[in-house]
Amino acid sequence: MPPPAAASRAGAGAGETESPAERRLRRLSLHLLQPSPAPADQAGPALALAACAAGRARRVEGGADVAAALAAYLRGRHRAAQMRLFDFFRARPDLQTPVELTTAAHRELCFRQLRALVRDAGVRPLTLMASDPAEYFAVMEAAGGADISLGVKLGVQYSLWGGSVINLGTKKHRDKFFDGIDNLDYPGCFAMTELHHGSNVQALQTTATFDPVTDEFIINTPNDGAIKWWIGNAAVHGKFATVFARLILPLQGKGGEPADMGIHAFIVPIRDLETHSVLPGIEINDCGHKIGLNGVDNGALRFRSVRIPRDNLLNRFGDVSRDGKYTSSLPTINKRFAATLGELVGGRVGIAYCSVGVLKVAVTIAVREACGGHGYAAVNRFGALRNDHDIFQTFEGDNTVLLQQVAGDLLKQYQEKFKGGTLSVTWNYLRDSMGTYLSQPNPVTARWEGEDHLRDPNFQLDAFRYRTSRLLHSVAARLQKHSKTLGGFGAWNRCLNHLLTLAESHIESVILAKFIESVKSCPDEKIREVLKLVCDLYALDRIWKDIGTYRNVDYVAPNKAKAIHKLTDYLSYQVRLVAQELIDAFDLPDLIIRAPIGMQSEAYAQYTQYVGF
Amino acid sequence: MPPPAAASRAGAGAGETESPAERRLRRLSLHLLQPSPAPADQAGPALALAACAAGRARRVEGGADVAAALAAYLRGRHRAAQMRLFDFFRARPDLQTPVELTTAAHRELCFRQLRALVRDAGVRPLTLMASDPAEYFAVMEAAGGADISLGVKLGVQYSLWGGSVINLGTKKHRDKFFDGIDNLDYPGCFAMTELHHGSNVQALQTTATFDPVTDEFIINTPNDGAIKWWIGNAAVHGKFATVFARLILPLQGKGGEPADMGIHAFIVPIRDLETHSVLPGIEINDCGHKIGLNGVDNGALRFRSVRIPRDNLLNRFGDVSRDGKYTSSLPTINKRFAATLGELVGGRVGIAYCSVGVLKVAVTIAVREACGGHGYAAVNRFGALRNDHDIFQTFEGDNTVLLQQVAGDLLKQYQEKFKGGTLSVTWNYLRDSMGTYLSQPNPVTARWEGEDHLRDPNFQLDAFRYRTSRLLHSVAARLQKHSKTLGGFGAWNRCLNHLLTLAESHIESVILAKFIESVKSCPDEKIREVLKLVCDLYALDRIWKDIGTYRNVDYVAPNKAKAIHKLTDYLSYQVRLVAQELIDAFDLPDLIIRAPIGMQSEAYAQYTQYVGF
Repeated sequence: MPPPAAASRAGAGAGETESPAERRLRRLSLHLLQPSPAPADQAGPALALAACAAGRARRVEGGADVAAALAAYLRGRHRAAQMRLFDFFRARPDLQTPVELTTAAHRELCFRQLRALVRDAGVRPLTLMASDPAEYFAVMEAAGGADISLGVKLGVQYSLWGGSVINLGTKKHRDKFFDGIDNLDYPGCFAMTELHHGSNVQALQTTATFDPVTDEFIINTPNDGAIKWWIGNAAVHGKFATVFARLILPLQGKGGEPADMGIHAFIVPIRDLETHSVLPGIEINDCGHKIGLNGVDNGALRFRSVRIPRDNLLNRFGDVSRDGKYTSSLPTINKRFAATLGELVGGRVGIAYCSVGVLKVAVTIAVREACGGHGYAAVNRFGALRNDHDIFQTFEGDNTVLLQQVAGDLLKQYQEKFKGGTLSVTWNYLRDSMGTYLSQPNPVTARWEGEDHLRDPNFQLDAFRYRTSRLLHSVAARLQKHSKTLGGFGAWNRCLNHLLTLAESHIESVILAKFIESVKSCPDEKIREVLKLVCDLYALDRIWKDIGTYRNVDYVAPNKAKAIHKLTDYLSYQVRLVAQELIDAFDLPDLIIRAPIGMQSEAYAQYTQYVGF
Repeated sequence: MPPPAAASRAGAGAGETESPAERRLRRLSLHLLQPSPAPADQAGPALALAACAAGRARRVEGGADVAAALAAYLRGRHRAAQMRLFDFFRARPDLQTPVELTTAAHRELCFRQLRALVRDAGVRPLTLMASDPAEYFAVMEAAGGADISLGVKLGVQYSLWGGSVINLGTKKHRDKFFDGIDNLDYPGCFAMTELHHGSNVQALQTTATFDPVTDEFIINTPNDGAIKWWIGNAAVHGKFATVFARLILPLQGKGGEPADMGIHAFIVPIRDLETHSVLPGIEINDCGHKIGLNGVDNGALRFRSVRIPRDNLLNRFGDVSRDGKYTSSLPTINKRFAATLGELVGGRVGIAYCSVGVLKVAVTIAVREACGGHGYAAVNRFGALRNDHDIFQTFEGDNTVLLQQVAGDLLKQYQEKFKGGTLSVTWNYLRDSMGTYLSQPNPVTARWEGEDHLRDPNFQLDAFRYRTSRLLHSVAARLQKHSKTLGGFGAWNRCLNHLLTLAESHIESVILAKFIESVKSCPDEKIREVLKLVCDLYALDRIWKDIGTYRNVDYVAPNKAKAIHKLTDYLSYQVRLVAQELIDAFDLPDLIIRAPIGMQSEAYAQYTQYVGF
């Protein structure tokens, strides 16, 4: 390895004829090139982040067309709604979130943004959610582009507060609340989480006791641990809250004891509609400054025997009559609970939408610019994006809890299979791959290592599914073994890592299958090629990351493993060549990107200007 | 896997006789336990984060003694200095950093903290740095515990500004500046980085041209890209700056052209000592709000032909005489450059110290509490800790650049070895392991899978070194191959991932060797056992993460790979049992931890109190 000659100032003396793009490339390469300062007196190997910048120059032929076609394929039918929203914010610089502001100012700004969206731009999110949920989520993603806090505030008001009223209530609730929620006359909260029971809704302790004398429910917080915590819109703006509480019916239990009918949802007014003062019996405190999302005003709520009319029970899945009798179309507490939570699953779709939106912005700012110190400037936004986004792993159920639900359901399906039952459509694929797994890996295909084979979706999907099946089979056996000595709960804990890996493997199998479908259904050959490149990189990188597992059972032979590694590196290199086109296809306006180093125009000029030179 | 019975409210009715610790455990378990809500009407497998909380109860026998002995072994001889600093801050609540404050307020507070440390607590950091560097770094770590910004501000003032004057200057500079720097009369900056040349010091463009008529240097910023950027202490507090610039001597080059003598350091006054106004010819702008470390005032500096006396050249490695002649004990620009940068390496030690300090705080807050939503509250500090710490990857040279330096040096040593030269002491180990590598892996030991063997330091170290040697050997061959077609620079880029992996592998080998040494030299058998547990987990986890590499060359047989995986899981479980003792051994006072969920006392009570209930 001869020490490469110092190329560090190549082009530094370039004339004035260069284009802005060339100028930027030249400047970036100045920034990135790095001759080794040590050892002295020997030009060491030139340190080489520079290739990234150089790579940007080598765009594919007709790159702009590729980006445009890709954008058309990716953006789908909701682009117009998103563009309207971007245009609205472009015309309203007063609504732009500055780089630094206090929590109090951010909360006010965020509420102003949401109000402007509804009242000035004429967006009606609740109507959209009811009539065209996909468009609703596209609008939420775009709002999150303007400020992630805004996307989340919108989600709190419409998915959570609005969604709970619409989906858990009946006509009387819609008639009374729909318009006020939609036009923001009724800002509201979703008061589910309690301090002690973050992810454990079934164990919530707040009570709603029916009083047959006054025909009211009495909402009460029995202890500190039952304080509603992290409730969005509670600290400042909310007028109402959907409160999740145990429905208690006096005298209806065994021997005349009170009967606990399980978790139900109730509409509780928390602030006066006119004066905005907190209503009697309600104590609201502020959850304070957070890592991110400080535009959202999270609060903590305590109820001291707050009385609400019987009509405020959201009674779609269970009701109480005037004389205190309980009725429901669903026979058990568990069925009612599942139906209640099932109606709220849409919120998680919104979270995924927002999350993808954040990633698009972050990747656009970052591609293949070695951000270095500049990435640390707040103006370049990585910090805020990450801080705002962090909680998406915990929102509406910690991700390890959700993964355990996936694993639990896979195991249930696995048992069904061996009982001869029918698998649900989501993981029907396991039936086939389970068969494959129970036989030995094929010693012939284990040696195939040609690029055509490795980039064959059948090979990739088979590898993913093989892994999932294998994990499922082995964790089932381990659980059975450990249950004998540790009990079911202990065994589950002992196998927890294994179970999480199983769930992740299943999710990756589903992602890969969807990705392959989208590549196949792309009508433009050139675009299909670009998407397949990314899809293959995803598949092979995941296989390589788990190569130990595959090698241990000889699913791949040693040379095949090496070929996978080599091809992964090669595909990374190929993807780099189209990275700019891929990013351009997200088609995000500068208004949304904002970071000087992510702008399409001259980065450093923007930057020196920002700092004041 | 029979569905475990819902244990979710076990102990919820516990009486009033429980200890605070028991109460906390019970509350945590309420928070963590999670029966599966779906599928309906079937108690699914209980979701099981609960084990963590349960694990805390199962402390090792005599846990407190273990923690105390471990603390004594780990804390070393600088503990007293750190405790004095903690005590000082405990007595001065006015110096405590609040959860939310503006950038401007944080900068002022941070300066007040540093001044109080120097003037009220009587710490003299520059004196310490000169007389007992290890104690200086321990003080820096403790200051970073109070506020990471303070640790960094201290580093800017003393390691960078003070260090450059002491280490690059001569007696005249020390006489003039030492006391003023030490007692904070002379706050100063380290003006190396330029906008275009972040990590590339040799290519800096700022000039210092000698004017023989007035016996001065003229400091000048030739273009926007040469603006000094990210300079700590510049935006608000600095009175002086050590400016790195190309030393230009008129008439000394070939044919009477100006001679460029390379990068030298100069003391440049930037603000008036009395009025604090910015001096003529100097333009300072504010780098603004950052992701973290907002207590440190980073600024950007532009010089417009600023004149400084000839004496302000820090002339330890090169000097200019009255008649404009250059003298140096070092014969070449590269040698002088290496000597200059070599003197500044101490800064990186400080970064590692601060980094370890941050990790201790974060781990103490996090252990085995499943932080969930509460981790997102700013008061619980994860966000601030991470945001403050992020830049440690880029400080004083981006980490990928530093890794390339390591790889470059390893390759140089590799060449030396084949030329029969002597290896430097740092990686002497490669000589032996290279021999091992060049032979085939041992088919007998590849099958050993007993716990004794896997936990044998010789096996672990051999595996780490084998990997390093193999990576070194293979990347050298690849570089040679690609150089023929791509040139040295292109080949280096093509192999970049490989080179970074090599450097990381080497670093991990060094860490493991040091860890094994520390375990061996621990005099207390019980403590040695605990440390060995962590050391083994580190070693086996790293081997397992790279198992594909080991399997591909049959360094480990399939069953050995499985045994490594299994033992890694088991050791994690074992480490969990002593996690509390390991954390207690860091021995950090609540003043430093601060986060309610990390306190030794009742977490939720602290928390509800903080929010205002």
